[in-house]
Amino acid sequence: MKKTIITISREFGSGGREIGKKLAEQLNIPFYDKQLIEIAAKESGFDKELFEEEDARTSKGFHLFGALGYSLGGPLSTITELSLNDRLFLVQSQVIEQVAKEGPCVIVGRCADYVLKDYDNVLNVFIYGNMEDKVTRAVKSYEVDERDVESSVRKIDKHRANYYEYYTDRKWGRVENYDLSLNSSTFGIEGCVEIIKTLVEKES
Amino acid sequence: MKKTIITISREFGSGGREIGKKLAEQLNIPFYDKQLIEIAAKESGFDKELFEEEDARTSKGFHLFGALGYSLGGPLSTITELSLNDRLFLVQSQVIEQVAKEGPCVIVGRCADYVLKDYDNVLNVFIYGNMEDKVTRAVKSYEVDERDVESSVRKIDKHRANYYEYYTDRKWGRVENYDLSLNSSTFGIEGCVEIIKTLVEKES
Repeated sequence: MKKTIITISREFGSGGREIGKKLAEQLNIPFYDKQLIEIAAKESGFDKELFEEEDARTSKGFHLFGALGYSLGGPLSTITELSLNDRLFLVQSQVIEQVAKEGPCVIVGRCADYVLKDYDNVLNVFIYGNMEDKVTRAVKSYEVDERDVESSVRKIDKHRANYYEYYTDRKWGRVENYDLSLNSSTFGIEGCVEIIKTLVEKES
Repeated sequence: MKKTIITISREFGSGGREIGKKLAEQLNIPFYDKQLIEIAAKESGFDKELFEEEDARTSKGFHLFGALGYSLGGPLSTITELSLNDRLFLVQSQVIEQVAKEGPCVIVGRCADYVLKDYDNVLNVFIYGNMEDKVTRAVKSYEVDERDVESSVRKIDKHRANYYEYYTDRKWGRVENYDLSLNSSTFGIEGCVEIIKTLVEKES
């Protein structure tokens, strides 16, 4: 089956988001990351600001309690006993499923590979990089404090790993979760875009 | 720098060896795996049978004591206090360095990615696959006993991981050791060959 939905998981500073954005532009298909929150907010009626504040908070302190195992298809009204974080995750997951059903797109982060694990038309990509390059990009693109930037980069990835593992019961960054893993330090941003684009256009 | 040396690490049953062999054929460059032992035996004067017997044994029971940290460049005569396993690893490493210096080639297994870590012209690839496909290939290509074949596949990979971790102090199958990781269940044998070939021919 042709792979038309591309999910991108990425280390902080690896350029994964930029790769996803350029890929979507070149393939002329929608790109989702922060926008997902906005769509989710609108769909669910949740207040947008509350969502974004909550989203910023969840990235700071998740614990490894394993997968939630909740059915993503159920109505939100039946799961009001869940924490706001968990409800946020479920709303986002429903939005991811919805956009995936609408047609080809690129989705960065938000455990999209896990949310869409039962879909055959999904290509899951992991982007990582050498620490030196990630540090350079973090300072340049995200204005991370130059003091102890390597530690900041590691900390952000630790949060991503914890978030992913809490909701999926999988290990973030392990090859088995992805169809393809690329070191952006080897191939560069444009190189990675080119590799994925070629595969998407060819896979059938 | 152009990547002309390709190392392939692979899960058992993923078809990684076949991918390496076909890749070498299509690029018209030498392919090394078992042959390495023969070259090593000839170079060192070690008895070939002894080598192969030892090689079969080492795959069964390595422990996780971390990296050896020995200089690979030293003459073997200075390291006679090492176990035969360790000497075998060092001889193989010297052979890997030698063939890499001779020109473009494909090397499967034997921690070649680690041995050649200081070379810029090396593309390190990891090939893995879905369990169902690995089991099918194991039964078909390697005549693994059909009873409990999944357990055998896991056991062989556990040995590979232990061997790699013992000699390199790295985690086998972790993306950071490789430039590129490919799921052969997604792309197929020919698909993986094609992807790597395109990258080798393009990278410069």
